[in-house]
Amino acid sequence: MKINGIAYRSVWLDADGWSVRIFDQTRLPWEVIPLRLTTWREAAQAIRTMQVRGAPLIGAVAAYGVALAMREDPATLDPVLEALAATRPTAINLRWALDRQRAVLHKLPPAARAAAAYAEAAAIADDDAETCRRIGENGLPLLEEIAARKGCVQVLTHCNAGWLATVDWGTALAPIYMAHDKGLAVHVWVDETRPRNQGAALTAFELGAHGVPHTVIADNAGGHLMQHGEVDIVIVGTDRVTRRGDVANKIGTYLKALAARDNGVPFWVALPHSTLDMR
Amino acid sequence: MKINGIAYRSVWLDADGWSVRIFDQTRLPWEVIPLRLTTWREAAQAIRTMQVRGAPLIGAVAAYGVALAMREDPATLDPVLEALAATRPTAINLRWALDRQRAVLHKLPPAARAAAAYAEAAAIADDDAETCRRIGENGLPLLEEIAARKGCVQVLTHCNAGWLATVDWGTALAPIYMAHDKGLAVHVWVDETRPRNQGAALTAFELGAHGVPHTVIADNAGGHLMQHGEVDIVIVGTDRVTRRGDVANKIGTYLKALAARDNGVPFWVALPHSTLDMR
Repeated sequence: MKINGIAYRSVWLDADGWSVRIFDQTRLPWEVIPLRLTTWREAAQAIRTMQVRGAPLIGAVAAYGVALAMREDPATLDPVLEALAATRPTAINLRWALDRQRAVLHKLPPAARAAAAYAEAAAIADDDAETCRRIGENGLPLLEEIAARKGCVQVLTHCNAGWLATVDWGTALAPIYMAHDKGLAVHVWVDETRPRNQGAALTAFELGAHGVPHTVIADNAGGHLMQHGEVDIVIVGTDRVTRRGDVANKIGTYLKALAARDNGVPFWVALPHSTLDMR
Repeated sequence: MKINGIAYRSVWLDADGWSVRIFDQTRLPWEVIPLRLTTWREAAQAIRTMQVRGAPLIGAVAAYGVALAMREDPATLDPVLEALAATRPTAINLRWALDRQRAVLHKLPPAARAAAAYAEAAAIADDDAETCRRIGENGLPLLEEIAARKGCVQVLTHCNAGWLATVDWGTALAPIYMAHDKGLAVHVWVDETRPRNQGAALTAFELGAHGVPHTVIADNAGGHLMQHGEVDIVIVGTDRVTRRGDVANKIGTYLKALAARDNGVPFWVALPHSTLDMR
């Protein structure tokens, strides 16, 4: 998505062809700083300190961390995989991205590992961007239907499930970006998302930078807005979905789901298949 | 209720016998400053700037404002009543307290007004404290029943409906203070109450100052705590209750009511009869 008219991803290869760029998300929205990662230790540190967050993005950055390590010393594969896996033990996509790297690299001679690791990291990032784009395509008709009926579409979202949480597009925000880019009138109610304020700091930043109209609201306000007909649809992301369909997401999602049910507002959870935990 | 062992009300007559003391609630919990009001204009300013808030307390401070004005110039009764009524046009108790002063003072000769106005203000304050004490007596059995069954009682509350919002005891917090003073084990989950943080700033302060165990939580967390059996009862105050029983209270109360219903947690609204708006 765009920041002031220029398209970005949340992780990308530097012009030097080997170092890795991310935005320091702990500084957003106050400073838009593209950090340069030059070692796998810096990648691990970025994950640990939440300079990057969001399950898909963590996976992609970890995959690039493996590439940085293979460039430095291809004999360190196993300890590096182990160290990166420990940076955020609960993130399901982190383990999945590292497993993809392991499967590719283990069968290769050390001299071939660096190039293969960079290629696999790029594939992981591209796959995630494409998955999210398709979430957008799948969600778009929901918004088009409301726009056809009402003119402007009022969406409420909680926390940050936008492109900053993935590699591009986001999950919950993907249909919103797609609708906005197609010229639909979309306005987003952005839950502040206490206690860490990911809505106020990240979702509001990325919507604003891309040009999508939005309003930050106190988490307490969503039910009131629904009671007064000011919300047409709720879309959120999710950390994990169980086999029987239970959704685990940021604290407070449940309260908005109850209010949506009480007021007959459609409530959608946007996720890639990798977030389904069949165990 | 007490601050570090010393009993206070939220408004009281100074030792000089005529000036009026309040706590500057905009400075709580950082500074506990007993402000001295010496003119009706200072009383009006205190209401307008939210140095005092909470419908019953606003009424009592306005009544004392009339007394200050009558001491200065008893001929100013009508313009002072009008000016004080305009400080917070929506508060139902403000109008009610001023009507009480008007009914007493209008029939008196100017020379007799000051003494009568002080007496009426004191009566309004005492009536409010007694009303709130009786809310506590009425609510106490609810907590005793839970304590008998479970040992510790976990109460969740939203915003500030404690003694700082009234003259003493509070509405929602009155049963909690009474239970605590009787030796029951009570712990209060205090909603932060965004966007103005009355829970974190005022409710946590007054519970802590009186010695009642409590934990400040993000507004988002209450539903999760109810799902996990960590809330035995919810008690909130209210701004106004309609004839048919609809409750208007601080933004976010509705979301907690939905979660209480979804989890079978008893949800109580504590109010004096003066908060019922039969129109």
